[in-house]
Amino acid sequence: MEATEITSSSNERLKRWKRIVSSPRHLRRERATLAEGFHLAMATRDARFPVNAILLRADCPEEASRLAREVFDETASQGRAPRLFVIDPPLYEGIAPVEAGSGIMLEVALPGEPDRASLRGRDALYLDGVQDAGNAGTLIRTAVASGVRVIAASRKTACLWSPKVIRAAMGAHFGATVLGGVEPGELKALFGARNLAADARGGRDIWAEKGWEKGPTVWMMGAEGPGLSDAALEAADLRLYIPIEPETESLNVGAAAAVCLFEQRRRRLAR
Amino acid sequence: MEATEITSSSNERLKRWKRIVSSPRHLRRERATLAEGFHLAMATRDARFPVNAILLRADCPEEASRLAREVFDETASQGRAPRLFVIDPPLYEGIAPVEAGSGIMLEVALPGEPDRASLRGRDALYLDGVQDAGNAGTLIRTAVASGVRVIAASRKTACLWSPKVIRAAMGAHFGATVLGGVEPGELKALFGARNLAADARGGRDIWAEKGWEKGPTVWMMGAEGPGLSDAALEAADLRLYIPIEPETESLNVGAAAAVCLFEQRRRRLAR
Repeated sequence: MEATEITSSSNERLKRWKRIVSSPRHLRRERATLAEGFHLAMATRDARFPVNAILLRADCPEEASRLAREVFDETASQGRAPRLFVIDPPLYEGIAPVEAGSGIMLEVALPGEPDRASLRGRDALYLDGVQDAGNAGTLIRTAVASGVRVIAASRKTACLWSPKVIRAAMGAHFGATVLGGVEPGELKALFGARNLAADARGGRDIWAEKGWEKGPTVWMMGAEGPGLSDAALEAADLRLYIPIEPETESLNVGAAAAVCLFEQRRRRLAR
Repeated sequence: MEATEITSSSNERLKRWKRIVSSPRHLRRERATLAEGFHLAMATRDARFPVNAILLRADCPEEASRLAREVFDETASQGRAPRLFVIDPPLYEGIAPVEAGSGIMLEVALPGEPDRASLRGRDALYLDGVQDAGNAGTLIRTAVASGVRVIAASRKTACLWSPKVIRAAMGAHFGATVLGGVEPGELKALFGARNLAADARGGRDIWAEKGWEKGPTVWMMGAEGPGLSDAALEAADLRLYIPIEPETESLNVGAAAAVCLFEQRRRRLAR
């Protein structure tokens, strides 16, 4: 397992990772992203996700080097040969999605576009303009934990494969089908499911309304503040609200999605 | 409404705000905190919360100056005279809890310690070592929206009155009783309620288990990663888990709390 040291900010590979971190356009063009931290590196290994490169911070703990070796061996057993890079700490921190990262980061290849025909009849979560990467990642994690394994997003939503979203989703990407650039008007043709709008401004009481959990659903969640766009509300078959305390305004989008997706799960498990 | 300009980083008031932002100990000693942004300033005004000072960024939008005037008038009508400060943008950003804040910030006085006798028999949320300020704030917001208006926290939890927690809670503090420095072993004497542990590692199925929502409850939530401490698990009357998909690990603490607190609300509204 030979390592290449990176000690200069003008290193071409480092510049490429910087572009991947800072620009969804570059990320898509390179078809690669970065997964930082022990937990994500282990999740990547366990999911046998294709690893292009292993990045270690030069002063990383022994534990990180050991994990790098395991990821290398696992990847090699799949007939790939990931490159290993040992990176000067300030340069490593410059590309890590969180401050004081744990010292190991993997460059992973993005999966190809999902076969759209395979999406019909599946449950999905749809993110309509959720720009905050941490929120988007938490939403993916919550959806997968609730059994909803397809996550689609509008163009205005954060790039779902960005390193910050991956970090917040804690490995949920590896058990999910993720697709971006989907507008609300396309949902019906894509999924053929019941479009449910989580709408703090009105509609039916999610707990009192019966039967919405039957058959496949697409739960649509809007951004903090503005909520769902007009296009999303038009595409909805049903608008549902969570009965919160009257004088409180709304829930954080991650909390609202947890309530909706787990109410769906509760109802289905009870059947 | 006379304004004092602050243009130097060695200004004594600025240094005091910096201490409040960076140290919970100073925040408690000064009995004051900072609420940044339009939304929070409006929530503070609507809640008639005591405002010590109004801070405007020198290049703030017209909207922020107008709101400053409204907050000033509202506070004056309560017989107080808040001071107004206009602060150089880089100095303002140095004390704002978020990047690119909206240009208005209020120094508010912390409420006194709640009368402990008044807490008996009330529902509460208990945060056991939740160190991330964003998570702690979201948890307060979720609790209040679910009708749980007392939030208690262990010493290892983020200071619930820190500007970052206040920012993430979006004004929920103003409708809540918040108290820190409470250890799990004290919960029973303080609340006399049923202590419910949200525990990903075991216990009973939150949906299958009957009756736990009856009478007052204290929902205990642990930190991301470690979960509830041994002391919290020992103090629990009942451990409940959310049945997530088998191969997923856990939910984000904010999502888990939303599921638990809103399942409690759903059951109570259905009775």
